[in-house]
Amino acid sequence: MSEALYIIKVGGNIIDNDEKLRAFLHSFSSLKGKKILVHGGGKLATKLAADLNIPQQMVDGRRITDAETLKIVTMVYAGYINKNIVATLNALGTPSIGITGADAHTIKAHKRNHPTIDFGYVGDVDGINESFLLSLINQHLNVVVAPITQDDQGQLLNTNADTIAQEIAKAMSKHIETILIYSFEKKGVLRDINDENSFIPIIDAAAYEQLKNEQAIFAGMIPKLDNAFEAIRAGVKKVIIGDAGALHELVGGQSGTAIS
Amino acid sequence: MSEALYIIKVGGNIIDNDEKLRAFLHSFSSLKGKKILVHGGGKLATKLAADLNIPQQMVDGRRITDAETLKIVTMVYAGYINKNIVATLNALGTPSIGITGADAHTIKAHKRNHPTIDFGYVGDVDGINESFLLSLINQHLNVVVAPITQDDQGQLLNTNADTIAQEIAKAMSKHIETILIYSFEKKGVLRDINDENSFIPIIDAAAYEQLKNEQAIFAGMIPKLDNAFEAIRAGVKKVIIGDAGALHELVGGQSGTAIS
Repeated sequence: MSEALYIIKVGGNIIDNDEKLRAFLHSFSSLKGKKILVHGGGKLATKLAADLNIPQQMVDGRRITDAETLKIVTMVYAGYINKNIVATLNALGTPSIGITGADAHTIKAHKRNHPTIDFGYVGDVDGINESFLLSLINQHLNVVVAPITQDDQGQLLNTNADTIAQEIAKAMSKHIETILIYSFEKKGVLRDINDENSFIPIIDAAAYEQLKNEQAIFAGMIPKLDNAFEAIRAGVKKVIIGDAGALHELVGGQSGTAIS
Repeated sequence: MSEALYIIKVGGNIIDNDEKLRAFLHSFSSLKGKKILVHGGGKLATKLAADLNIPQQMVDGRRITDAETLKIVTMVYAGYINKNIVATLNALGTPSIGITGADAHTIKAHKRNHPTIDFGYVGDVDGINESFLLSLINQHLNVVVAPITQDDQGQLLNTNADTIAQEIAKAMSKHIETILIYSFEKKGVLRDINDENSFIPIIDAAAYEQLKNEQAIFAGMIPKLDNAFEAIRAGVKKVIIGDAGALHELVGGQSGTAIS
């Protein structure tokens, strides 16, 4: 168990809250084992864009990334957020390195080609440089990944952090027992978005089909769950979805929703 | 010779000019051998600060770094500049990783404690994590270093890129033959700042003392030269100062000022 690799995605609402982020990083730091942390961006990029009078457009929950917005997310995600997390973890005695998908071309991606929507500089993931990630974790470094990738022409691309976590987990599961954790501000997968106590402790494939048929899951969770089952099918041992404030309990099975 | 390590500092005026930067990165990419690139920040941070109405104060050519300015330089240096350089080099077939001094705590630093001037969040370098840099270059990765460091409390610090290049060169020279190159927009060390043809091809310690005594060197070069001789004394094989547009000629000894 101590040899497992945890891929932990931490959501934007945690990143936006200094106190919650610090508590999360303390828990992350004290969690035994090999770890890769994938962070989202939260509202900081939106705030910087507003301060610079750069209009932002969202479609289906995705940021349309024009050239100016790409500059902003690169600065905020790869610069400010990533380096502050790394510095905090290092100071907590958890040696860490922050990377984007561009570094050592860790994540190969291409610009999204959508039939009807021009998402701009948004990347879809093609593959992971597993050997480089293995070399880092084998040097006992915790890896902190910002959701920026590049294509093979040197173009940086804004990329969904949930997807990055899932793709890294799938790729690493070929080499090491891998557990994927989506941590955010909710207790887990909820039947009722307004009732924290409606979370479902365990979902297997059959239960998931039934829950979807009964429309018994908050619709916003369905892409996360589809991703989770895709990860399981690709060899990830377990996917856990739950409260970033209870990381040890998520890992220990006392909290969150386990997908298997 | 092919086994030497080149530590190449590229100055802000090159970073500010897309065309010059691209030409420099092409030369860097085609240069054989192990390479670490240290970049400065140029005017982008100043421009972003102006756009955000954050006043900037310079003392002795150093940026006074308050909390808001630190955020800006972290975003611009570690985010925007560093990741664009890395993506360009990767696309040129030169596998690269971008780091700050915080990543893997590659550069240990402390907040500058000056008797009369409060520089704010400015770092002075205490040491280099050479084994981590060696592990990267031994994986055939070119390392691109942004001039941000951290202290042991997790505080990020704005740090002079010339100093970082020098400290990395000194530390690496204990393990591998190391050549330090300061590349900028001038042909080399000039006797007359207004005459590009007044550059001095070779300076040794005795010649340097004489040139200083005669006041025959542009005053702004003296800190760079003092750094260069300190590097040589610490074991760096050669220091070359010259035109970023002539990188291969600098390495080959056909251009620039060689310090030995």
